[in-house]
Amino acid sequence: MIIVLRPDATKKQLDHLVSKIKELGLKPWVSKGIERTIVGVIGKEDVIRTQPLEVFPGVEKVLAILKPYKLASRDFKKEDSIIHIGDGIKIGAKKIVVMAGPCSVENEKLLINIAKKVKSSGATILRGGAFKPRTSPYAFQGLGMKGLKFLAEAKRQTGLKIITELMDVRDLDLLLKYADIIQIGARNMQNFNLLKEVGKTEKPVLLKRGMSNTIKEFLMSAEYILSEGNFNVILCERGIRTFEDSTRFTLDVSAVPVIKSLSHLPIIADPSHATGKWGLVGPCAKAAIAAGADGLIIEVHPDPEEALSDGEQSLIPENFEKLMKEIKRVAEAVGREV
Amino acid sequence: MIIVLRPDATKKQLDHLVSKIKELGLKPWVSKGIERTIVGVIGKEDVIRTQPLEVFPGVEKVLAILKPYKLASRDFKKEDSIIHIGDGIKIGAKKIVVMAGPCSVENEKLLINIAKKVKSSGATILRGGAFKPRTSPYAFQGLGMKGLKFLAEAKRQTGLKIITELMDVRDLDLLLKYADIIQIGARNMQNFNLLKEVGKTEKPVLLKRGMSNTIKEFLMSAEYILSEGNFNVILCERGIRTFEDSTRFTLDVSAVPVIKSLSHLPIIADPSHATGKWGLVGPCAKAAIAAGADGLIIEVHPDPEEALSDGEQSLIPENFEKLMKEIKRVAEAVGREV
Amino acid sequence: MIIVLRPDATKKQLDHLVSKIKELGLKPWVSKGIERTIVGVIGKEDVIRTQPLEVFPGVEKVLAILKPYKLASRDFKKEDSIIHIGDGIKIGAKKIVVMAGPCSVENEKLLINIAKKVKSSGATILRGGAFKPRTSPYAFQGLGMKGLKFLAEAKRQTGLKIITELMDVRDLDLLLKYADIIQIGARNMQNFNLLKEVGKTEKPVLLKRGMSNTIKEFLMSAEYILSEGNFNVILCERGIRTFEDSTRFTLDVSAVPVIKSLSHLPIIADPSHATGKWGLVGPCAKAAIAAGADGLIIEVHPDPEEALSDGEQSLIPENFEKLMKEIKRVAEAVGREV
Amino acid sequence: MIIVLRPDATKKQLDHLVSKIKELGLKPWVSKGIERTIVGVIGKEDVIRTQPLEVFPGVEKVLAILKPYKLASRDFKKEDSIIHIGDGIKIGAKKIVVMAGPCSVENEKLLINIAKKVKSSGATILRGGAFKPRTSPYAFQGLGMKGLKFLAEAKRQTGLKIITELMDVRDLDLLLKYADIIQIGARNMQNFNLLKEVGKTEKPVLLKRGMSNTIKEFLMSAEYILSEGNFNVILCERGIRTFEDSTRFTLDVSAVPVIKSLSHLPIIADPSHATGKWGLVGPCAKAAIAAGADGLIIEVHPDPEEALSDGEQSLIPENFEKLMKEIKRVAEAVGREV
Repeated sequence: MIIVLRPDATKKQLDHLVSKIKELGLKPWVSKGIERTIVGVIGKEDVIRTQPLEVFPGVEKVLAILKPYKLASRDFKKEDSIIHIGDGIKIGAKKIVVMAGPCSVENEKLLINIAKKVKSSGATILRGGAFKPRTSPYAFQGLGMKGLKFLAEAKRQTGLKIITELMDVRDLDLLLKYADIIQIGARNMQNFNLLKEVGKTEKPVLLKRGMSNTIKEFLMSAEYILSEGNFNVILCERGIRTFEDSTRFTLDVSAVPVIKSLSHLPIIADPSHATGKWGLVGPCAKAAIAAGADGLIIEVHPDPEEALSDGEQSLIPENFEKLMKEIKRVAEAVGREV
Repeated sequence: MIIVLRPDATKKQLDHLVSKIKELGLKPWVSKGIERTIVGVIGKEDVIRTQPLEVFPGVEKVLAILKPYKLASRDFKKEDSIIHIGDGIKIGAKKIVVMAGPCSVENEKLLINIAKKVKSSGATILRGGAFKPRTSPYAFQGLGMKGLKFLAEAKRQTGLKIITELMDVRDLDLLLKYADIIQIGARNMQNFNLLKEVGKTEKPVLLKRGMSNTIKEFLMSAEYILSEGNFNVILCERGIRTFEDSTRFTLDVSAVPVIKSLSHLPIIADPSHATGKWGLVGPCAKAAIAAGADGLIIEVHPDPEEALSDGEQSLIPENFEKLMKEIKRVAEAVGREV
Repeated sequence: MIIVLRPDATKKQLDHLVSKIKELGLKPWVSKGIERTIVGVIGKEDVIRTQPLEVFPGVEKVLAILKPYKLASRDFKKEDSIIHIGDGIKIGAKKIVVMAGPCSVENEKLLINIAKKVKSSGATILRGGAFKPRTSPYAFQGLGMKGLKFLAEAKRQTGLKIITELMDVRDLDLLLKYADIIQIGARNMQNFNLLKEVGKTEKPVLLKRGMSNTIKEFLMSAEYILSEGNFNVILCERGIRTFEDSTRFTLDVSAVPVIKSLSHLPIIADPSHATGKWGLVGPCAKAAIAAGADGLIIEVHPDPEEALSDGEQSLIPENFEKLMKEIKRVAEAVGREV
Repeated sequence: MIIVLRPDATKKQLDHLVSKIKELGLKPWVSKGIERTIVGVIGKEDVIRTQPLEVFPGVEKVLAILKPYKLASRDFKKEDSIIHIGDGIKIGAKKIVVMAGPCSVENEKLLINIAKKVKSSGATILRGGAFKPRTSPYAFQGLGMKGLKFLAEAKRQTGLKIITELMDVRDLDLLLKYADIIQIGARNMQNFNLLKEVGKTEKPVLLKRGMSNTIKEFLMSAEYILSEGNFNVILCERGIRTFEDSTRFTLDVSAVPVIKSLSHLPIIADPSHATGKWGLVGPCAKAAIAAGADGLIIEVHPDPEEALSDGEQSLIPENFEKLMKEIKRVAEAVGREV
C-alpha cells in the first residue's frame, strides 16, 4: 500500500499516519520526494486494506500494490485449473467445450429434440433455464421443478451434462440434484449470499460476469466461491454494458486474455447474450475462441419465432451445426481442438 | 408495436407476419412507404412483446410504442405517491426526508451516539447495515442479528425510524420485524426473487438503482414489487458506473426529473455511495434536492478513520449538521422544506 | 512514480530498471515488501512519465504519484481564477454568469429578438453558433460569416457579450474579431492543434468537456491552452456518454466539485446539451448551481418547432425567464448571486 | 418516421402536427390504438429529420425508421467495397491487409529498420505518425515534415505503402504528397471540417472510430467523406471507452460483423490502441480476424523501452513475425488469406 500525502500535509499529520500504521502491526517507510511525501506500508495488505486511509488528514490518495483476490489469482496457482464435469468432460484443457440448448426449458419433447441435435453437432453440455431471471415481471419466468425434470430426461436420453441457473438460495438442494454445473447469472454476480452457498458445495459453478463489473470485481466474486472451499469455478464473459446500442451488450473479448493472465480459472464466452442477435453469434463465437477462450455457451432453438425467451439470439440447429464446423477450424488454428 | 421490414422483404414474408399477428388476436395495419414497409400492431402490447418478432424473415427492427411497465408509470397514476413510514413521516410529500447513519452497524454505543446526533440535526430515519454486501469475501460482512437489535435499541431511545438492507430471502421475516423500511441494494436490483418476496409484504421498500441499469429497467424492477401488491416503493438514485474514475460512481442527477416525469413513485438520492468521497457529499446532496429529489440517504460516522466500512464517504456529525442547514436553504429555494 | 515488480522479478531485472532510472538523472529507492518489491522514483516526474516503464522486464505495473497537468492545477494556483470578459463581466466570481441564446444563428431578426429577451431575463452573454458541428453531413451547418455579423449586430443593440464556436484553425482570426469568448466544442476537446492556436491568443476560451473524456483528460486539454500562455480558460461540463438513453448525455454534476478541488479554473454547466430535452433543463441547471457551478449556458429559442437545430432542448423565452428566477433563489441558497 | 402521441394528446394537437407534416410536402397517416395514437410520415425522411418534432405539443416520442446515412449503407451498395491502394494492394478483398510500424516516426535509421522487418513478416503497409495527437502538451508531438521524409525514404527502400495521420486541415497538401492512406484519428472522428477536406480528395482514408462513438455515428462520419465524393474509405475499430480499466479501451469485436451488415465499406482493427498492452495484441488481433475484419494495424518497435510513444503496446519484430504466422492460420480458418 502506498499513501501519497498532499503537498501541504503537516509533520503532525504524517506522524499520526505513521503511528496508526505501526499500531496495526505494519511497517511504514517514509520517502520525501520533491513534490510529494509518500508513505509505504509493508506487511499484510489485507489488514490495511480495511482501513479508510483516505480520510486521514493530509492524505491525497492511496494506491494499492497487491490484488484484492488471492485464491483466484495466478500468483496463488501458476498452472491452469481444469474443471472435471464427469465422464471425461473437462473445462480448461486443450479441448474446447461447447454448452448449447434453449434459453429456457419450454417442454419435454422440444428439449429432447434440441438436446439430440446439439449433441450430434458436438456439444457435450446441455443448457436450459428452469428458473429464469426476467427484466419484466410479466415475462415467462420458467417452468421451475418441471423444467428440471425435463432436463434430467434429456440427460438420460443423450448423455449430455446439464447446466442450469440458480437464482435463489432456497433452490440450491434441488439444483445440486439435477445440475452438473450450476450457473450463477450476470445479475447475481454480486449476490454474495448465493456465492457463499455454492461455495460450500463441490459442484462446478459457471460464474457469469456482471454486465457492469470490472474483471477485478469478477475475480473477487469468484474468490467468494473459492474462499468457501469450492475451487470448481468456470468464468464466463457475456458482454458488458456500454453506450453502443446496436448490440444488446458489448462482448469484451480482451477479457479472455486478461483473465488468462490474472487467474488460473478457465474462461468461456457467451456470444448469444453478449450480442442479442443470432446473426452475430457466429463471428463472436469464433472471435472468443481465437482470443483463447476455453469454451462457449450458445443458445439453440429449432423455432426461434415461437421461443418463450430470447428467440432473437437463438441459432437454429442447422446454423449451430455449421458454426461448430467453423469453430473447429478456428480452434485448430490456435492450437486447440473441439 | 411498430415492425419495420427490410427493403428486400417479400410479399410472402409480409403475409406470414400479418397472419402471425392476427393469430395472437391482435390487429395489424400495413403502411407502404417509399423506402420501407412498416406494420403496426394494435392491441395489448403485453401479448406481442413476448414474441421475438425480430427473427421473422424480412423484419429489420421492432420499435416499442408503450413502456414495458404499467403500475409504476405516471400513466397509471397521475398524482405523486406518498409513502407513509409511520408517526407522520412521509416520503414524497413537500417535506424532504433525510435518512442518515453509519454504513454498517458496528456497536451499540456508537450507533446510539450517531442516532442522537443525526436526529438533532434533522434526520428522521436512521440507516445502518446489519447485513452488508461486500465486494471482497475478506471484508467485514456485518453484525447480522446483533446489528438489528442495536438498531431496535437506537429506535427506542431516539424515535427514529429504521432502514436496513435485505440481502437474502431467508432474512425477510427478521427484517419485517426490525425495519421500518427495507432497503434493496444496488447489487440486488435485479434479484427478482428478492423483489417478489418484499412485494408480498406491505412494508415500505427503498429500491436502489443498479449501478448499470437504465431508468427503464429500474422502473421494471419497481414493477416487480408493485405487481405483487406492495405499492410502498421509494426509488433511490445512487450513482451509475461510467468511465469517470475520480468518483466511485457518477451521480445521475437528471434521473431525478426523468423519473418524476415517468413515474408517480418518490425518488431520493444517495450522494455518499454515488461519490465515494465525503468532500463531494455536500455539493451532490444539494444538487439532488435542487433537481427535485424527495429525500437523501447520507452516511454519518463520528470517527471515519475507524469505520469498518466506507469511512471515505462518511461525514462527521459536525459536517452533517452544517450540511443539513445548507440543504434546508436549497430545499426552500425550490419550494420544499426540511 | 512507483514501479511495482512482479513476484518473480529477478535481481538482474531490478538492476536494469534501477540503472535506467539513474541514467535519466532521477533517484531510485527500492523497498522490498513481503509479497512485492517496489521501486520509487524521485525527481521530475515529467521526465520519467514519457518512459514506457511497463515494458521493462519484471515490471507488473506503474503508479503515478503526481497529476499529469500543472498550470491547470490547484497546486499551481491556490485561489480561484476569475476570467474577465469586459465591461465588468467576470466568470468565477461570486456572481453566477448565464450565457443564453439559440443553438445556431438562423437570421438577424430572430437573433436580436432572442438577445433582447435573454438580456431582460438576466443573461449577460449571448450564445449562438455560426459554424456548427453536426453529426450528419446533411444537417444545417451554420451561416458562417453571415452568422458572425448578426451576432455583432445583436451585441451592438443589446450590449451582451458574444460566445460562439471555433471549429477550424482557419477561422480563428475571424472569431477573434467577433467573439468575446471562443467556444471549443466537446467534439474538439482533443483537437490539440485547435487548442494550441487559441492558446496563443489572449481571448477567453470556453472549453467543453468531451463526451467521453475523464476529468483528468479535460484538465490536460485545458493545460494545452494554458501552456501556450492563455490563462483565460473557462471549463464547461456538458454531459458524458453513458448507457442511459432517456437523456442525450448524462450530466456529471459531481464533476463540478471535483474540478473545483483539482483546479483553479472556473467551471460552468450546459444543461441543454447534457439532457437534450427542454423539460430537464431547469432541474439540471439548478442542480449544477447547487453543486457550485460558476455559470450556465442555456439554449433559448422562441419557436422551437422551427429551430434549425436542437429545438428539442431549447427553452422558450417565457420559460427561460421563469428559470432565471428559480436559479437566482438556488444561487442565493448556496451563497452566490445572479 | 413514427410519431407517438401522449395518452392525453388533444385533437387540436394532432391536427397541428398533421398540418405541419403536410406543409413539409410529406404524407401523414394516423393510427389510433387502444392506448396511444401514432402518426406515421411517408416521404423523404431527410426532410422531416431536421424538424424537432419532439417539441410539438402532445408528442411523446419520435421513432426513426430509416438510417441517417445513405452512401455508407449496404442498402445503397450491396457488394463489398474494395479500396485500391496501388500496386495491387487492396483492402476489403479476400486477402487480409496488415499495416505495421512504430507509433511515431522517431529517426530514419530506426524507421527503415522496422520497415524492412515488418515487410519480411508480411505487412504491406507501413504505419508511423509524423504528427501525433497527444493527451499531454508536454509529450512528444512528432517530427512533422521531417517524419514525412523519413517515411518516404522507407517507402523507397522497401516498397511498402505509407499510412500516416492528418490532424490539421493545413497539413492536407503535405499528406496528399507523402501518404498512400490518410489516417483520421479517433479524436478527430467528429472533426467535421477535416472530414470534408479529405472527402474532396481521392486519397484512401482510414477513419478510426471515436472512443465513445456509436457505430451509427461512425458511419455518419464516413458519410461526411463519401458525400464529398471520396468513396475510398476504410473503417477502423480501435476500442471504445468503458468502465473496464484493465485495458486502455475495450475492443468492440462485435462492431466488425455489425458494420459488415450495415455498410459496404471495409473494416480493420487496431488491437494495439484498443488494448494498450503488447501482451494482449496477439489474442485481440486473432479475434478480430476470426470475427471477419479485413485487416489489422499493429504497432511494432524493436526497442519498446526507448520508444517515444506507446512503447507499452508495441510488439518487438520477433513477436510480430510470430503473430503474423498465427494470423495466417486464423485467416485461413475463416476463408481468408494473408
